[in-house]
Amino acid sequence: MEKELLLMLPGPVPMPERVRLAMSRQAINHRSAEFGAVYADCVRVLKTAFGTTNDLFVISGSGTAGMEAAVSNVGKDKEIACFVNGKFGERLYKISQRYGTAHEIKSEWGTPLNLAALEEQLEKGAEIVTLVHNETSAGIKNPAQEVGRLCRKHDALFIMDGITSVGGDLVEADKWGVDIAITGSQKCFAAPAGLAMVSVSSRAWERLTKNPPFYLDLAAYKKSASGKPMETPYTPAVPLFLALREACLLIEEEGLPARIARHQKMSGAIQAAAKAWGLALFPKIDKLHGYSSTVTAIEYPAGVKDDEMRAAIKKMGIVIAGGQDHLKGKIFRIGSMGAVSAPEILATLAATQYALKKCGYTSKGNGVEAAAEVLG
Amino acid sequence: MEKELLLMLPGPVPMPERVRLAMSRQAINHRSAEFGAVYADCVRVLKTAFGTTNDLFVISGSGTAGMEAAVSNVGKDKEIACFVNGKFGERLYKISQRYGTAHEIKSEWGTPLNLAALEEQLEKGAEIVTLVHNETSAGIKNPAQEVGRLCRKHDALFIMDGITSVGGDLVEADKWGVDIAITGSQKCFAAPAGLAMVSVSSRAWERLTKNPPFYLDLAAYKKSASGKPMETPYTPAVPLFLALREACLLIEEEGLPARIARHQKMSGAIQAAAKAWGLALFPKIDKLHGYSSTVTAIEYPAGVKDDEMRAAIKKMGIVIAGGQDHLKGKIFRIGSMGAVSAPEILATLAATQYALKKCGYTSKGNGVEAAAEVLG
Repeated sequence: MEKELLLMLPGPVPMPERVRLAMSRQAINHRSAEFGAVYADCVRVLKTAFGTTNDLFVISGSGTAGMEAAVSNVGKDKEIACFVNGKFGERLYKISQRYGTAHEIKSEWGTPLNLAALEEQLEKGAEIVTLVHNETSAGIKNPAQEVGRLCRKHDALFIMDGITSVGGDLVEADKWGVDIAITGSQKCFAAPAGLAMVSVSSRAWERLTKNPPFYLDLAAYKKSASGKPMETPYTPAVPLFLALREACLLIEEEGLPARIARHQKMSGAIQAAAKAWGLALFPKIDKLHGYSSTVTAIEYPAGVKDDEMRAAIKKMGIVIAGGQDHLKGKIFRIGSMGAVSAPEILATLAATQYALKKCGYTSKGNGVEAAAEVLG
Repeated sequence: MEKELLLMLPGPVPMPERVRLAMSRQAINHRSAEFGAVYADCVRVLKTAFGTTNDLFVISGSGTAGMEAAVSNVGKDKEIACFVNGKFGERLYKISQRYGTAHEIKSEWGTPLNLAALEEQLEKGAEIVTLVHNETSAGIKNPAQEVGRLCRKHDALFIMDGITSVGGDLVEADKWGVDIAITGSQKCFAAPAGLAMVSVSSRAWERLTKNPPFYLDLAAYKKSASGKPMETPYTPAVPLFLALREACLLIEEEGLPARIARHQKMSGAIQAAAKAWGLALFPKIDKLHGYSSTVTAIEYPAGVKDDEMRAAIKKMGIVIAGGQDHLKGKIFRIGSMGAVSAPEILATLAATQYALKKCGYTSKGNGVEAAAEVLG
């Protein structure tokens, strides 16, 4: 029987039926009251998930377009301090290099940020700071609140990539002093890939730099969004907006605190399984850093081959992620984003436990049972 | 009864059911052989529609993102000559101003291009030329082949916006000497809005300029597309690719020449109706310029108010377009793009004929009958 694979990745993630079916309707005019209401529904729920009362826009493009919108609108010819402890921190650093003078503050992937080095950069005159809140490449949650505090102390703008935290983990952009926050549709929102969402503080508006890319010019988004009906400056990806609206309404129906608690429970179950198996979680955390609650990165035990293990799991219809770049073969990653609940987690852990055994690893204990204890 | 409106706009246009339903399936991994095959199917058909054997990529973003990808990858700090005889020519000019020194070659909207002025610019050293092939704001088709000839003569790169011609009208990018051609998904392809397609010649690759926007960096698209499986550099809008694939397969099934002939027949019927009504087509054409076969722009007779007439038509469930910017109230526009065939055209013309009468205009003759003569 052909059946879709269960994607337990750090995005894309399975979409609820209501979200998927919203896309199958006939084309609607994107310069109409109907589309304006769709956009407004999205923005209302997104602001709650971002923890912001700032302006917020939806860009038809992937999360990377959102990252570039942030950097390019305020970073031109500026000194930019970029935290890197994983792949997406690297991406923000690369984007920053196209616009300003970017200073990498590097830690090993999955290890704590060097906050002292940030203070040093800020004292030297860095005006912009970039941070990935939840670094999926390494499964680590970075201390956004602490970074925000340092940015405010030195009057720097704070750009935070919340692509894999907003909508699944607690984000309080305003309280933390985030000036531009970014997320993507295909992660914790469980909507289709292809939309980036960006919030912009009044401090950021006051410090816009010249000539951002035309397509990513936030001032144009602001102008179009403030009209009646609410619009986007260029033709939006209408079906994706329709799907995102349903995804947002589902978040309202579940309630954001309940949704965040669910993500913590699901990742807690995966962590409990790893512990029972005798496997180490990959991130090295301290009291400021935490394990991600939207993706769990686990170290392979000696002798277990990544391609073999993930092939054995895929044979059972489930896809988990390996490591990226230099972490290929060293870690595997299980997503717990979006609409995921106990059945998907239990199935994934049972398949993983079996695959570990098949690949020659003798687990210390029963991870599936340990997870069920958390979930039950 | 609530029923969707029939959109007879110059995009977005009604989508065939097969295209719409393709979007409702569950998320698939965009780094998989399955997605690679979807992308490859799209590119195969797109190359035929572009009339090119050049590299061709699909960007998750609107047509404007495609326009900016073209200009930003080859136009940085260059002298750029920009033809403007409508709104989208203006947009290419505005984008060009962000990257190089842009020289506007302006004609009134809907009137012929000044080819002598282009020669002058090329002699003065313009290295890039931008043109909108089919200018929907004015319903005019511009002489791409002639512009291409002049570009080659002076060894300039030729950027052609084919957003509302590719897939509905004859485009022969290679034969015409187009270096970068652009189209969008929601026009003649009758797919959802949100994807831009860009072809790149070897001459363009040889003349890439530095530091285009990260998200629109064509070299990154080339690298990802040349892998196995074929990929995009950043997460693509997967449901839109699935829909575009179906739209492309429908084009293959119909056959491109038959599709182009259908567009000509449909627009021919609209033109015949206008003539029978005694209304003038808006564009002033000559032997190099033509009437668009994907959108027909018609002048309002004295006394007929745009908002009243379009409201009367909308009351019958049909949406046509007014004029943009300074043409608001002066023209109305009927799209004949994509999957549109006789029933939609007849219904639209019947509604328009009735609305003209209701708004106080006495038609010279029966436009619906004249259209039926063309369609029958």
